[in-house]
Amino acid sequence: MPMCEGEFFDYLREVDCSDVEVYSIPEGSVVFPKVPLMRVEGPVAVVQLLETPFVNLINYASLVTTNAARHRHVAGKSKVLLEFGLRRAQGPDGAISASKYCFMGGFDATSNVLAGNLFGIPLRGTHSHAFVSSYMSLDEIPNKALRSKDGSRVCQDFVSLVQEWLQKIQVADSLGGVFGDTNQSELAAFVSYALAFPSNFLALVDTYDVMRSGIPNFCAVALALHDLGYKASGIRLDSGDLAYLSIEARKVFRAVEEFNVPGFGRMVITASNDLNEETIDALNKQGHEVDAFGIGTYLVTCYSQAALGCVFKLVEINSKPRIKLSEDVAKVSIPCKKRCFRLYGKEGFPLVDIMIRESEPSPKAGERILCRHPFIESKRAYVVPQHVEELLQCYWPGRSDKPRAELPSLDKIRSRCMQQLEKLRPDHIRRLNPTPYKVSVSAKLYDFIHCLWLNEAPVGELQ
Amino acid sequence: MPMCEGEFFDYLREVDCSDVEVYSIPEGSVVFPKVPLMRVEGPVAVVQLLETPFVNLINYASLVTTNAARHRHVAGKSKVLLEFGLRRAQGPDGAISASKYCFMGGFDATSNVLAGNLFGIPLRGTHSHAFVSSYMSLDEIPNKALRSKDGSRVCQDFVSLVQEWLQKIQVADSLGGVFGDTNQSELAAFVSYALAFPSNFLALVDTYDVMRSGIPNFCAVALALHDLGYKASGIRLDSGDLAYLSIEARKVFRAVEEFNVPGFGRMVITASNDLNEETIDALNKQGHEVDAFGIGTYLVTCYSQAALGCVFKLVEINSKPRIKLSEDVAKVSIPCKKRCFRLYGKEGFPLVDIMIRESEPSPKAGERILCRHPFIESKRAYVVPQHVEELLQCYWPGRSDKPRAELPSLDKIRSRCMQQLEKLRPDHIRRLNPTPYKVSVSAKLYDFIHCLWLNEAPVGELQ
Repeated sequence: MPMCEGEFFDYLREVDCSDVEVYSIPEGSVVFPKVPLMRVEGPVAVVQLLETPFVNLINYASLVTTNAARHRHVAGKSKVLLEFGLRRAQGPDGAISASKYCFMGGFDATSNVLAGNLFGIPLRGTHSHAFVSSYMSLDEIPNKALRSKDGSRVCQDFVSLVQEWLQKIQVADSLGGVFGDTNQSELAAFVSYALAFPSNFLALVDTYDVMRSGIPNFCAVALALHDLGYKASGIRLDSGDLAYLSIEARKVFRAVEEFNVPGFGRMVITASNDLNEETIDALNKQGHEVDAFGIGTYLVTCYSQAALGCVFKLVEINSKPRIKLSEDVAKVSIPCKKRCFRLYGKEGFPLVDIMIRESEPSPKAGERILCRHPFIESKRAYVVPQHVEELLQCYWPGRSDKPRAELPSLDKIRSRCMQQLEKLRPDHIRRLNPTPYKVSVSAKLYDFIHCLWLNEAPVGELQ
Repeated sequence: MPMCEGEFFDYLREVDCSDVEVYSIPEGSVVFPKVPLMRVEGPVAVVQLLETPFVNLINYASLVTTNAARHRHVAGKSKVLLEFGLRRAQGPDGAISASKYCFMGGFDATSNVLAGNLFGIPLRGTHSHAFVSSYMSLDEIPNKALRSKDGSRVCQDFVSLVQEWLQKIQVADSLGGVFGDTNQSELAAFVSYALAFPSNFLALVDTYDVMRSGIPNFCAVALALHDLGYKASGIRLDSGDLAYLSIEARKVFRAVEEFNVPGFGRMVITASNDLNEETIDALNKQGHEVDAFGIGTYLVTCYSQAALGCVFKLVEINSKPRIKLSEDVAKVSIPCKKRCFRLYGKEGFPLVDIMIRESEPSPKAGERILCRHPFIESKRAYVVPQHVEELLQCYWPGRSDKPRAELPSLDKIRSRCMQQLEKLRPDHIRRLNPTPYKVSVSAKLYDFIHCLWLNEAPVGELQ
C-alpha cells in the first residue's frame, strides 16, 4: 500500500490560511444541535483541509467539557470535583486535553501535574497505595522531629505522640471501643507523610481496612498534628461502600471533637473508585458524607457516550447555497451562510436560538420575530426577545480588517461555561426527560431551505 | 485551592532515572491478566513518580491495539482495514496514539496524514461529501484534457468521454436499464478527482443516491479512465445497508466487464459508517461484497470497553516482599520480584504462563515443571514445555551493565503482534466463550504467597 508523496507534507506545511475567516461561538458557551459551532469561509481547497483538524479539536473537547458539566450538575455546587483521569486517557496528550476541558466544565482541580503547570489548573491528589505498602514499620522513620506550625517549639518524637493518640482513641468511650490493632505499615506511611507535609495531610485510608485501620491511624496522626497547630486535610476512600464508609468515618470524626478539637467533624472526605454520574446520583439518594469526588475513567473516556458526532458541512460555494440531503431528516444540513442568535426572555433565560440568512436584518430586543422549526412546517412561534445575543464571533479574520474577538483565559472560559449553565431554564437540563431547547430558523431561511430541497431532490432521486 | 510550589516542577524536570531498571514484555506481545507487563526497580521515590506515566502510556496503547486486533480477527485476514478515527479521538495526539497502535494491532492504513508522516504508516482515505457538494455542474471543470497512462496520447475532452460512457451504461441491456439521470454535481466531482488522480480514483458514492447516481457516475468515470490505460481504485459506501449496497454494486461491476473490461468486477468496495466488531460480524453473517472497512469512532474510543485497568503494584521493597490484599481475590497482587515465562507445547501453541521467584531456576524445555494457579489450591498441572520463552526483557538497564533489549521498528512490532495472535490456540481467541488461557506460579512462589498472605492478614483485619 503506497504512502502519499513527500511533497504533500511540504504542501501541508505551507498551506496559507490568510484568506480564511473563522467565526465561532465563544468557547465555554452552551450550544444546541443544528446551530453551527463554527463558520469557516475561504478557498475551498484550504477550507476542506481544515475540516478534519477542526472536527478533531472540537469533538472531544466539547464532549468531555459536557461530561464534566454533567458530573458537576449531579454532584451539586458545594462538592469539590477532582479530575483523576490521567491513567485512563488516550496517552499523555489525550489526558492533557481531558484535564483542561474538565476544568472548563466545572471541575475544581486535576491530579495531572503537567496540566496544572501548563494551564494553571489547581492540583490535587493523594499518595498512592504503593506509598502505604512501601513501609513496613514505624522503625523505618529516621527523623521523628516536627516543628510546630507557629515555629515556637519542636516535638522531638512525633511518632510517640501519634502512638499516644492512637492508644487514647482505641480506648475512648465515645468511639465505643471499636478500634483494635491497626496496621503498622499504614501508620508508618501516614506518619512519614505528615512529617513531610504537616499542613497538607491527606491520607488514603483503604489499603488495609478503612474502619479498623485507616480511620484510627488517620485520626491519631491528625490529632498529633493538631497538638502542633496543624490542621489535617482529610481522607480519601478508594474502595468499598462509599456511602456507608463516609457516614461511619464522619461519625468517628465528630466523636473525636470531644478531645477538644472543634471542627474535626468537618474533616474533608474524598471518595474515588470508578465514580460516574450514575454512582454519584445513587450516593446522593442513599445519603453520604463525601465532600469531594475524584473521578477518572468514566470522566475522560466519556463512558456514557464515547464520541460526539460533530460534522463539517459545505453550506455555500461561490454564493450558491448547498444542501446535504438524507433519508434521515436529522442529517439534512441547513444550507447558506448564516448568522445565529440566542433570544432571551423576561426572566433572563434563553428562549430559543435562531439562524437567519446573512442578508437578513438581525433580530432586535423588543421586536417580534417568527421562529420556525427548520423542517416541520407546523412548529413555529412568535418571540419578543428581551435580549439578543449574536452567537458566531470572528476569531480569525484572515486578511480582512474585521475585528478579532478576544480569546479569554481558561478561568474566564470556565466562568462563562458555569454562568451559561446557570442561566438555562432548569427543565432544559434536568437529568430525566429534559425539555428540548428550541432551535429555529427565520421565515425566510425556512422558505429557502424547502425550495432548495425540492430542487435538489427530484422525485425518485432520494434513496 | 493552592497550586503546588514551582520548585516541584523543577524537581520533576531533574528526576534522575539512572538508578532505575525497567523490564518489559516486548511490545506487540500477547499478554494475559496477572503477568506483569513491566517490572520497575529502583529508588522508591523515583519509581513511584514513574507509576502514573507508565500506567498512562500502557493503558490506552494496549487497549486500542487489542481493539484493533479484535477487529482484524472478526474481519478476517483478507480484508483491508483502515483506521478513520482522527475526528473522534481525544484531541490531535490521542488520535496519533490511536493510529500508531491500531496499525500495530493489525490495521493496514490510516487516514491520519500526520501519523503516516511520523510512523511511516500507509495512508488511505477518500474525498469527503463536502468535496462532492462543492461542485455544481460539469461546466465548472476548466481543464478537461487527460494524458493516457503510458503517455502516448492525450484525451482533449475527458468530460465528453465520461458522458459517452454514462450514456452507454444507462442503456446497457446487461445492466437492465436501471440507471436514469445521475446527479451532475456528483459527476463533476468524480471527473475532477479522476483528472487530478487518474491512478488513484476512489469515489465516495453515497452523497446523493448510491445505486441511482453514485455507482453509474463512478462506472462512467472508471470506464473513461480505462480507455486511457488507468485502473480505478474503487468506491466507498458511507451510509445505508452496506450488505445490500455492496452486493448490488458488485453485480453492476461484474456486468460492466462485458464492455471488454476484464477485472472490473473485482473493483474494491470500501465500507464505513459507525462500523465495529458487531456490525462486521453481522455483515459477515448476512453476506456482503465489502473488501475494505474504514473504522473510526468505535475503534479509537474502544467503545466496547472504554478503559483498560492496568495498575502498578509494589511487590518488593529492600528485598522484602509486599502483597496488596483485597476482599476481591482478583485484586490481590502477586508479591516478590518475579521472572515470567511462556511455556509452549508440541504443536507450537503457548500452553501456560508461569511466574517464578527471581532466585528460582528457569523452566527448561523438556523438563517437567509444576504450574499452580496463584490462589486456588486444587488447580495445578505438570507441564513439559517444548520451548520456553522468558517474557520480561531489560529495556532500561540504568547504570547497570545489563544488555539492553532491542527496540524494534513499528513494522516489526506489528508483525510480532500478528504472529503471536496466530500462534494462539484458536479456542483462546474465539469470540464466544473463549477458553481462559492459564497463568500460573511455581510451587515455591505459591507457597510463599500464601504464607505471606496469612502473615499480613491476621484474623479480623480484612474488611
